[in-house]
Amino acid sequence: MTITHKLALIGFGTVGQGLAEILLAKGDELADRYGVRFQVVAVSDLLKGSLYDPAGLDLAALLDAARRTGKLHDYADPRPAREPQSGWDSLRTIRESNADTVVEISWTDVQTGQPAIDHVKAAFGSGKHAVLTNKGPVALAYRELDELAAAQGVLFRFEGTVMSGTPTIRLARSALAGCQISQMQGILNGTTNYILTQMEGGQSYADSLAEAQRLGYAEADPTADVEGWDAAGKAVILANVLMGGDLRVADVDRTGISGLSLADVEAARAAGERWKLIARVWQEDNVARASVRPTRLPLSHPLAGVSGAVNACTYTTDLLGDVTLIGPGAGRTETGYAVLGDLLEIVREA
Amino acid sequence: MTITHKLALIGFGTVGQGLAEILLAKGDELADRYGVRFQVVAVSDLLKGSLYDPAGLDLAALLDAARRTGKLHDYADPRPAREPQSGWDSLRTIRESNADTVVEISWTDVQTGQPAIDHVKAAFGSGKHAVLTNKGPVALAYRELDELAAAQGVLFRFEGTVMSGTPTIRLARSALAGCQISQMQGILNGTTNYILTQMEGGQSYADSLAEAQRLGYAEADPTADVEGWDAAGKAVILANVLMGGDLRVADVDRTGISGLSLADVEAARAAGERWKLIARVWQEDNVARASVRPTRLPLSHPLAGVSGAVNACTYTTDLLGDVTLIGPGAGRTETGYAVLGDLLEIVREA
Repeated sequence: MTITHKLALIGFGTVGQGLAEILLAKGDELADRYGVRFQVVAVSDLLKGSLYDPAGLDLAALLDAARRTGKLHDYADPRPAREPQSGWDSLRTIRESNADTVVEISWTDVQTGQPAIDHVKAAFGSGKHAVLTNKGPVALAYRELDELAAAQGVLFRFEGTVMSGTPTIRLARSALAGCQISQMQGILNGTTNYILTQMEGGQSYADSLAEAQRLGYAEADPTADVEGWDAAGKAVILANVLMGGDLRVADVDRTGISGLSLADVEAARAAGERWKLIARVWQEDNVARASVRPTRLPLSHPLAGVSGAVNACTYTTDLLGDVTLIGPGAGRTETGYAVLGDLLEIVREA
Repeated sequence: MTITHKLALIGFGTVGQGLAEILLAKGDELADRYGVRFQVVAVSDLLKGSLYDPAGLDLAALLDAARRTGKLHDYADPRPAREPQSGWDSLRTIRESNADTVVEISWTDVQTGQPAIDHVKAAFGSGKHAVLTNKGPVALAYRELDELAAAQGVLFRFEGTVMSGTPTIRLARSALAGCQISQMQGILNGTTNYILTQMEGGQSYADSLAEAQRLGYAEADPTADVEGWDAAGKAVILANVLMGGDLRVADVDRTGISGLSLADVEAARAAGERWKLIARVWQEDNVARASVRPTRLPLSHPLAGVSGAVNACTYTTDLLGDVTLIGPGAGRTETGYAVLGDLLEIVREA
C-alpha cells in the first residue's frame, strides 16, 4: 500500500528545486521502498510567485518554469484541465492548502529568523508538520517552536540546519538511542575547513579566502563563516536540541580563524598537530555550554583528517565512547536530501 | 506511561553481563526517556546454568552470582518469596518463557552458526523477536532468518555483528533512509587496524601481532583476524542486509595483512598513503560483490586517519556522496549497547 503525503514548499530556490529534482527522479523508488509518494500541492515563493493544486503539481513543469523564466506563472501543466490556483501568499498557502507538511525553505533573515518562524508557527497552528533547513529559526526559537509542535500534536524536523543532509541530528536522536551524549565536537563550517586545508598546503589565509570566494564557498562578506558565527549558530542548535540547553548565539564563546597565520599552521605541523575550527558543546554542572574556536588536534584525532569543504561531528557517549560522523555540509542535492530524510521520518512517526 | 518488555538471555558471558550492567545502571533513565523498562525474565547459559522468573530476575543478584562463582544456582534473590525456575535448557527457555524478545548471545560455532541459528528459529517459531551479536548466524543464514521473522510478524536485529554497538546498520537503514548506497568501504576488524597502526610506528608485523595478542586484541591463533576472515564475514552481512546480496563468506575476494612488510608500509608513506585492511561491498551489474584486502589510501581519505583498534565505514550514496561513521568495534559495554540499541528499535517498531 502506498500513501500520499502532500507538501507545500514555502520558497523555491536551490533547496526547493533540489528537493523537487530528487522527488522527480526517485518517486517510484521511494514508493516502492517506503510506501509513500510525496506530492507537491503548493509552491509559494516571494519572487517566483505561487501555485496551488490540491491534487498535486507536476514536478517537471515546476522545475522547467523555474529554469526557463524563474516565474511560476510560466508553469505549464502537461495534464489536461488542470488549472492551479495562483497568487496565494505564503501564509495563505500554509493555512489553506491541503498539505500535510510545510517545507519552509524561503529566504530568511538570520538575525530575526523571519519570516520562517512565523511560517512554522502558522503550519503548526493549522495542524501541519513542518520541515526547515535554515538554521536561524532553530537557533533563535527552537524551544518555543518545539513546544508549539508538541501542543498541536505535529512534528518539527530540521536535519538540514547542521551538516546539510548528513544525519547529524538523526544519528544522535535515533541511531544512538540509549546513549547519553556528554560532548559534541564538530567541524560544522565547510568554508573555514576549506581555508584551513589550503593553508596546510602553504597558501596564505588571504589567498585561501579569495579562492574560497572564487569557488562560491565563501560570501563576498565572509564574516559569518570566518569569524565563527555560522558554526556558533549550529552549536546552539546541537546544544538546545540534543543536550536540553537554552543557549543563544551570543552565549557561545566564539573565536574565528581570521587571526591564524601560516606560522601558526607550521607550528602545529611541527608538533604533529593540525588546526581545525572546532564547535564544541558540552555539559557543565548539568548546563549545556558551547564554544567555537580554532583548536590544535593531534593527527590521530578523527576530526584531524577531515579535509576540504567537508563537515564532521564527534559525539562522546557513555556507552560507546567516541563516535564520529563525516559527510557533506552543503549542496543543492545534499540539502534537498535533508528535507527528504525529515519527511520520511515524519511519515514513519506521525 | 512505561511499558515492560521482557527478555530471555541465551548465554550470560561478556555481552550478557555487559547488557545487564547497562540495564541496571540506566533502567530509570531508559524508562524516563523511552517509556520502556526492560525486564530480564530468563537466563540460560550452557555452563552457568539457567533461571526463569516470569515476573523478572534481579539484575544485581544475577551479576553477583556470575562474578562470585559463575554459577546461576548461587543466584540469591533479595526479594522475599521469589523462587525462580531452574534447569530449563536454551530451547525450553526460548519456547516456554514469557519473554517478548530472545537475546541470543551464547557461544556459537562460527562455521555452522549453531546453536544460535536454531535458537533464533525457535524464538521466531514461538512469536518472539530476536536480537543477536554473533556474526556467524547472520553471515550464514540472514535471508532464511529474515524471511522467517517476516512470516511470523516478529523482528530480527543484529547491530552488534558489525562494529559492535556503533550503529553501522541502523545508520544505513534508518538515518540514511531515502539514499541508495552503491558502495561501502570499511575498517571492520580492530585487531588488524591496531597491527597496521603499530607498523606505521616502525614496529614489525611479528612484534605488532605479539603486542596485539598480549593486549587481548588478537587470539592465540590469529588467523581469523589477520587473514581477513572476520572482516569477510562482516562484509557478507553488509552485502546481504543492505545491498540485497546473497553472498557466502567463500564468495568474498579475500587477502589478509600477514604478507605486509615494514618496507610496504614505508613505500606507502613515501607516496603520501597508508595501508588499511579494507572490506569493500559494491554493486556490479545489480549483483552485490565483496572483497577484503590491504589497500593503500591517500591520507586525505576519511578512513586513512582511523587509528588503533577502531572501526569505520564509508557509505557511498546517491544523494550525499560519501558519509563516514567511525566508532568502537568491540568491547563489553559497546556490544552490550548494541543489544540495547536493537531492543529500543524493536520496542519502537513492534
